[in-house]
Amino acid sequence: MNIDSNPARSGALHPDRLFPADPATRAIARRLYAQVHALPIISPHGHTDPRWFAANEPFSDPASLLLTPDHYITRMLYSQGVALEALGLQADGSRQAPPDPRSIWRTFAARYGLFRGTPTRLWLDWVLAEVFGTDTPLTAANADAAYERICGRLAEPAFRPRALFERFGIEVLATTESPLDTLEHHAAIRASGWPGRVISAYRPDPVIDAESPGFLASLERFGALADCDVFSWRGYLEAHRVRRAFFASFGATCTDHGHPTARTQDLEPRAAEALFERVLRGARAGSLAGAEAEAFRAQMLTEMARMSLDDGLVMQIHPGAWRNHNTPLYRRFGPNIGADIPARTEYVEALRPLLNRFGNERALTIIVFTLDESSYSRELAPLAGHYPALKLGPAWWFHDSPEGMMRFREQTTETAGFYNTVGFNDDTRAFLSIPARHDVARRIDCAFLARLVAEHRLPEDEALEVAHELAYRLAKRAYRL
Amino acid sequence: MNIDSNPARSGALHPDRLFPADPATRAIARRLYAQVHALPIISPHGHTDPRWFAANEPFSDPASLLLTPDHYITRMLYSQGVALEALGLQADGSRQAPPDPRSIWRTFAARYGLFRGTPTRLWLDWVLAEVFGTDTPLTAANADAAYERICGRLAEPAFRPRALFERFGIEVLATTESPLDTLEHHAAIRASGWPGRVISAYRPDPVIDAESPGFLASLERFGALADCDVFSWRGYLEAHRVRRAFFASFGATCTDHGHPTARTQDLEPRAAEALFERVLRGARAGSLAGAEAEAFRAQMLTEMARMSLDDGLVMQIHPGAWRNHNTPLYRRFGPNIGADIPARTEYVEALRPLLNRFGNERALTIIVFTLDESSYSRELAPLAGHYPALKLGPAWWFHDSPEGMMRFREQTTETAGFYNTVGFNDDTRAFLSIPARHDVARRIDCAFLARLVAEHRLPEDEALEVAHELAYRLAKRAYRL
Amino acid sequence: MNIDSNPARSGALHPDRLFPADPATRAIARRLYAQVHALPIISPHGHTDPRWFAANEPFSDPASLLLTPDHYITRMLYSQGVALEALGLQADGSRQAPPDPRSIWRTFAARYGLFRGTPTRLWLDWVLAEVFGTDTPLTAANADAAYERICGRLAEPAFRPRALFERFGIEVLATTESPLDTLEHHAAIRASGWPGRVISAYRPDPVIDAESPGFLASLERFGALADCDVFSWRGYLEAHRVRRAFFASFGATCTDHGHPTARTQDLEPRAAEALFERVLRGARAGSLAGAEAEAFRAQMLTEMARMSLDDGLVMQIHPGAWRNHNTPLYRRFGPNIGADIPARTEYVEALRPLLNRFGNERALTIIVFTLDESSYSRELAPLAGHYPALKLGPAWWFHDSPEGMMRFREQTTETAGFYNTVGFNDDTRAFLSIPARHDVARRIDCAFLARLVAEHRLPEDEALEVAHELAYRLAKRAYRL
Repeated sequence: MNIDSNPARSGALHPDRLFPADPATRAIARRLYAQVHALPIISPHGHTDPRWFAANEPFSDPASLLLTPDHYITRMLYSQGVALEALGLQADGSRQAPPDPRSIWRTFAARYGLFRGTPTRLWLDWVLAEVFGTDTPLTAANADAAYERICGRLAEPAFRPRALFERFGIEVLATTESPLDTLEHHAAIRASGWPGRVISAYRPDPVIDAESPGFLASLERFGALADCDVFSWRGYLEAHRVRRAFFASFGATCTDHGHPTARTQDLEPRAAEALFERVLRGARAGSLAGAEAEAFRAQMLTEMARMSLDDGLVMQIHPGAWRNHNTPLYRRFGPNIGADIPARTEYVEALRPLLNRFGNERALTIIVFTLDESSYSRELAPLAGHYPALKLGPAWWFHDSPEGMMRFREQTTETAGFYNTVGFNDDTRAFLSIPARHDVARRIDCAFLARLVAEHRLPEDEALEVAHELAYRLAKRAYRL
Repeated sequence: MNIDSNPARSGALHPDRLFPADPATRAIARRLYAQVHALPIISPHGHTDPRWFAANEPFSDPASLLLTPDHYITRMLYSQGVALEALGLQADGSRQAPPDPRSIWRTFAARYGLFRGTPTRLWLDWVLAEVFGTDTPLTAANADAAYERICGRLAEPAFRPRALFERFGIEVLATTESPLDTLEHHAAIRASGWPGRVISAYRPDPVIDAESPGFLASLERFGALADCDVFSWRGYLEAHRVRRAFFASFGATCTDHGHPTARTQDLEPRAAEALFERVLRGARAGSLAGAEAEAFRAQMLTEMARMSLDDGLVMQIHPGAWRNHNTPLYRRFGPNIGADIPARTEYVEALRPLLNRFGNERALTIIVFTLDESSYSRELAPLAGHYPALKLGPAWWFHDSPEGMMRFREQTTETAGFYNTVGFNDDTRAFLSIPARHDVARRIDCAFLARLVAEHRLPEDEALEVAHELAYRLAKRAYRL
Repeated sequence: MNIDSNPARSGALHPDRLFPADPATRAIARRLYAQVHALPIISPHGHTDPRWFAANEPFSDPASLLLTPDHYITRMLYSQGVALEALGLQADGSRQAPPDPRSIWRTFAARYGLFRGTPTRLWLDWVLAEVFGTDTPLTAANADAAYERICGRLAEPAFRPRALFERFGIEVLATTESPLDTLEHHAAIRASGWPGRVISAYRPDPVIDAESPGFLASLERFGALADCDVFSWRGYLEAHRVRRAFFASFGATCTDHGHPTARTQDLEPRAAEALFERVLRGARAGSLAGAEAEAFRAQMLTEMARMSLDDGLVMQIHPGAWRNHNTPLYRRFGPNIGADIPARTEYVEALRPLLNRFGNERALTIIVFTLDESSYSRELAPLAGHYPALKLGPAWWFHDSPEGMMRFREQTTETAGFYNTVGFNDDTRAFLSIPARHDVARRIDCAFLARLVAEHRLPEDEALEVAHELAYRLAKRAYRL
């Protein structure tokens, strides 16, 4: 990250933040971090909007850039009694005009204290100080000044998406699209001649999860895009192959699967075909059993792994979120407003069919994530410390935080080592926070390594080599970038 | 807590106890603690005996005050081979005379080393040093001298319940009673003119849990006290309303629900009524199915929330204890002797019916506790960080300890923040340990905050504001005191 | 451990390794460790080969001594793409010659970096430096020199099994055998006149687990060895009594039970007999239901406890491993190659039948282990902190590591105390690493205690007493050695 050359830098962030307080350990952490903090950013899994980089237009205002789309922010404010409408979310069918961005900003600034001790506070402090050079911390008193300053900055050419991408030192940025996406923005980026490497990732949940809204319509469109008869099992699988190849042609090196559970299944071809047909019939009749949908998702993970062995796409499995837990709110505001809740997630039995089928393949990479930290030392580290195909994704979502990252290292390293992990994912749609998130990860990894060095469990030269791996090389290698 | 003016103070407790060893972090913790350690005690959830404050008689002796009723103590000694009889517990039907209190005290003192590393050790050391001014640590050698000193003190007016209440700096103390309680001691306290604020809390388990002993007899008495026909669904609900109002008239601001699981359910009124009738029939026939009893408890949590929206009582849910796990011992000694064991507890699915019904109500407060720490980061912090009605109770029971409290903060703060928690509950029947328990909580919270400050994750002025909230204001606000 | 007098000592290991970095805390840890590091080793549970001590022949080469049989090593290398054949494991039916030991050693040395942050690194560094006096860390560059040096040492009399046993300061070492073992090596050790105390432990899984390969043949042999009709329930139980007594005559003081779950059951004698007969019928017909096999294992834990009350053998329960998770690999290489994976394990309900039957017996000791750390604070510490018969085994297998041991203390001590734990088990077949493993445990326990002292939660003189207990006395007492 090229933050040292940031002209707007305010100096408000402490250079030792997130390092252990013990002076000897902190000194080691500083030395390690000094060697890795400026490495380029590899962002192999995220949710930024490729249109930003295609159009390269100025961001409109501080609220719609930093607040309204950030579910970490809306969930916390909502939990403390702020109506989602006051944050700019539009209820379905509502005719009420949204509040103006400055009022949203003030609502947020007056409650910035709610984020004490959360990663949102770290990310926002970084964005305000490092990107915009405003005073931090944000308060009700300085809210308007910050708002004005940000508005002013956003109008400058240096704050357009591509300029920020470059300033942030991003080497590669992956977005995530469904097979129904035409990747037109990725095409526009390529056509523009801009050299920024923005790639896609193949996330087929809408055409694999028969319980997702509009599943049959999605299949129709999937078939049209791939020019396959997706209502036959052979055609359906072929359509995946076609679209995977299309995504790969736009630089995609991975797929992503956001299933409710980690369940996998390895049926014989005829049984798989029969299951597909039962799922189609159920979906058409509006009588699809949950167990059938689950079985189909499970089977498709194995099918995707089989295709990965052919086309080389790395496979990511993100299980364990109960989506839209708050039904009344979902009906009014739709998904992604902060009402997804993790659930207990089992891996040892669930992944076994897939791993028994393909887990011994050295040419395959399956990266698995969790929202259930109790599985780190019990299930995930032992699995990844054995199966050649399996790697552990970083601390994810609710655990993408200093304590969460530290627990990840403390609870996985002794069994899986460092080399069965894959570096950091920022996993964010909050573009401006990307360097802040990678910076937190680099600092925490250096803090963890510094403790190993201070406790004479690892020589410092080896810790430095590991720090490089964690900050840069592992992600590049695991995601084949 | 007004401990500095305690004339009996022996100075044996180290002023830096429980603070991190790193000198810079410790200095921050000291500064934070200096500002909050003397704040009044808010005790919104506990199990002291209101008769103590009504009668204000001297406590009888060290053993029956400090040892026999404390299940933390009896369980540890029992686990190491001490018979419960030797600790003053009376087996059902036994004609053996209980040992004299001094012999119980000696049995305990000779084994005080068993409590090394436990919170009991911290609490007792505090009580012995700060309340009674004895030498610590307690040993077999100084046991008799300590016993004598305590006996002498207990005879003094300054060691009667009300004097201690005042010396401890308790602003408000809640006891817990069943709807079958007449609150006569609370009435006597009020009638006495003593200004100490001792209030009740409404714990209706005996008339909601159809599996509790004497359920039908409890219902009879419930109906008589409320003057309602509690064998009809309408009358039963009305009786709850009547008794809740009665409790509120004695200062109660909350209800409490100690269910085996966190399961809730939201039936249509007719289905709820039918369930109630099935439960009554089953209880009368002695053939009640466990699933029916569970469903009824689940439904009643939703009914209680509905009433809370009307009468403003805060709702507490304490699930997950397997009561009386040791059947042979339960048959001989009854409940509450240290044989309750936590069980794995699920919240995301269990609380959903209640939260989907009332979780978006800003006027409602539901405080949820757990004995299953794996749910902190996975389930409870995400739920509390979203639903406006939901707050997290503090680390509870087996986790009401330095390590337990620290894990609570480390595992909930990043997702739920500090402001979706509710300060400390001492939850104890051990009256003399109340200041010790709040002191441990204040020290651990300051230790946690000091680390955030030392790692430059929170400015010290903000940490100080949070320390005040955690020690005093959050409890007062959450419990509407 | 008599390591200070080791003539081969290279000095490469830092004397403060594994101690907290904070200088004051480290100084305390050093003082505690200085008092306990040289205490004799009690190894009450392990998997070394008694033949080594019977024959006392030189170990053959570095690879077959240190690498090929160590599943911690083979699993990590396999996970990173190294074929098991390249590590000296022989696939079933393969005619390929195994690689020569030097080539295995080089394969390992070139990848030693994979073990950064793992306990394997700590153990190996210790063995290389303290036992063989080679330079550490091991690298591709110094691999051959290390190999030569180790080969040279292994040829010396001082590096034969008995000499190492003595040099390591082992007071007692338990191996683990099945009831089908004749204990001929133990007999040979006794007959030799060598005073080293090598004892057996009774692990009856092959004749209790009806799902284990060759169950009926094992029963035949069991009956022959015990001279009982093991196909009747009475004779079967009698055979256990006979073989337990035989094992006890070779010094065994404990039994060990490695079941998939912790389930226990307490049937009436006739129901137990009927279950036994159903299991036999099912096994003979090749139609045994998994639930029957599980019920029988559950019942046998209670039967074993009953026998322990008679013969005084301490009972160990090691549940929760999914054995041979990787079926394709199991078919080729068999068990114990690093493909066992922990699974979620429930104790509160599972152990209740056994504990309700015998848990209140002070004359009985049941030591329970877990691979599911989420059960430490929720289930195991509360159970062990109540039932007189129950004690907690140390952090086990995947958790036999610095972070794992520290979590064990942090999560069990506040509820179970120190005295319901049983000291350390090395649980290893890697003989040379035994002192290294005990050293890690002693260092981590001292580090934990040092923090309690530094935070003024325990006076240093009491901490020193506890350190002695944890390093030596508790194991000796719990295992009746």
